[in-house]
Amino acid sequence: MSRFDDDTSLREISSAGEVDRRFALEISDGWGIYAFPNGGYLASLLGTALGHALPHPDPFTLTCHYLRPSPPGPAQIDVSVLKRGRGLSTARAELIVDGKPSVHAIATFGDLDARRGQTVEEGGPPSMPDPDQSDVVEAGPGSGSTFGQRVEICYAPGTVPFARGELGGPMELGGWMRFADGREPCVRSLLLFADAMPPPVLRVVPRVWVPTLELTVQVRRRPRPGWLRAWFRTRHLIDGYLEEDGEIYDEGGQLVAVSRQLARVQTS
Amino acid sequence: MSRFDDDTSLREISSAGEVDRRFALEISDGWGIYAFPNGGYLASLLGTALGHALPHPDPFTLTCHYLRPSPPGPAQIDVSVLKRGRGLSTARAELIVDGKPSVHAIATFGDLDARRGQTVEEGGPPSMPDPDQSDVVEAGPGSGSTFGQRVEICYAPGTVPFARGELGGPMELGGWMRFADGREPCVRSLLLFADAMPPPVLRVVPRVWVPTLELTVQVRRRPRPGWLRAWFRTRHLIDGYLEEDGEIYDEGGQLVAVSRQLARVQTS
Repeated sequence: MSRFDDDTSLREISSAGEVDRRFALEISDGWGIYAFPNGGYLASLLGTALGHALPHPDPFTLTCHYLRPSPPGPAQIDVSVLKRGRGLSTARAELIVDGKPSVHAIATFGDLDARRGQTVEEGGPPSMPDPDQSDVVEAGPGSGSTFGQRVEICYAPGTVPFARGELGGPMELGGWMRFADGREPCVRSLLLFADAMPPPVLRVVPRVWVPTLELTVQVRRRPRPGWLRAWFRTRHLIDGYLEEDGEIYDEGGQLVAVSRQLARVQTS
Repeated sequence: MSRFDDDTSLREISSAGEVDRRFALEISDGWGIYAFPNGGYLASLLGTALGHALPHPDPFTLTCHYLRPSPPGPAQIDVSVLKRGRGLSTARAELIVDGKPSVHAIATFGDLDARRGQTVEEGGPPSMPDPDQSDVVEAGPGSGSTFGQRVEICYAPGTVPFARGELGGPMELGGWMRFADGREPCVRSLLLFADAMPPPVLRVVPRVWVPTLELTVQVRRRPRPGWLRAWFRTRHLIDGYLEEDGEIYDEGGQLVAVSRQLARVQTS
């Protein structure tokens, strides 16, 4: 078992008929950015529960709305199935902490291997030096948090100047990433990796907290083993609110997921 | 009243305590692409119901999962509020046709006018000839449907070659759009306009049906009166599945919404 598998394991409990499936779990303190569990880690918990409840294996698209903080400790996930189709199924799930919903998700699952159809792609992976070139490795702002011990990130040169206290756009950044314990990426883990890098808006607005309001991840391929490479971009910070778009490719240069979140710059 | 207001009007009915709010409505046949009501029209129905149920006026981000066809006729929308916060509130809503959920939505609402924070934007509206230049007007493939009678679209030159039976990428298209009856765009209508143009994938895969599985719209500004201009782009058609990203600007060139959907090429 890997740390990711350990920390996303769920135990089914009786829901007394209130919902289709109910799971008990422990929100780990091992995936925190400062005091708070990373939003991608919470998304992967919900994705795991949804995968247990649905007849299809892969989250084709999953959306989380973050309602309240989800501190480490005991929690519950309730899943209600909305549709069981032949090729696609849909359900919603709720992460409940201290009796209150803290994250609400809806997802449509399918089977990536069962898709049949044409492939046409425009554009490809971001061009970056290989991760084994040590000058690429740059400590991100989350590297002192527990999350930084679980996920190894090699940033593309010059894209996280704010880690050295420097400013300067554009509002984008990218790099290579993988689990620090050698676990290979899987479909489910892409929900975590979609929120693993710091927000690119930090390149123009320093030292702020950027809570995610909503995160949507579309998984498009099963990643092959090795590093993932990702690029995240914000184009419109408007009155403190911003979108953050991500593209995640596997080590072979194939697109495996796209993500978009709505976040807010919070000046404390 | 405009046709859009008429066709998104809801009547509250008793939910017998099962959900927070329940509405009866008529799905109009006036917004169809061929036989099916447009997905953006259905999103605007759900957004309208959510707006009635939540204390904040504007859908900052709304996601719809399309589970089943939603034919014109009587329907019901159930809304369950998940969070009522000071600045933001979240709810889920279900469009129910013939006793079955056909579209499931989750949204976080806020007040666009109450936001305080920095604005930094990179990139701007697509460059296109003005809509009053008649050589820009090109009939889209939906122009023969009822939707085409409600929404007037002037496509950017050369971006809908498939309307003349011609192929050729890139997988993008854009243009100007507005309600045909002169109603000005509002925040709620952006949910409709986010799905108003034909899928750009038609530039490379002709004569297919492209059903939307999931649509997410982030509203970022209140549009000023006049035309909207939008650009939609697909970069990864993979095994028949595709993302479609949209940017909608108002006549003043200000970004008012971004959209992303997951759709599927269906060869009948």
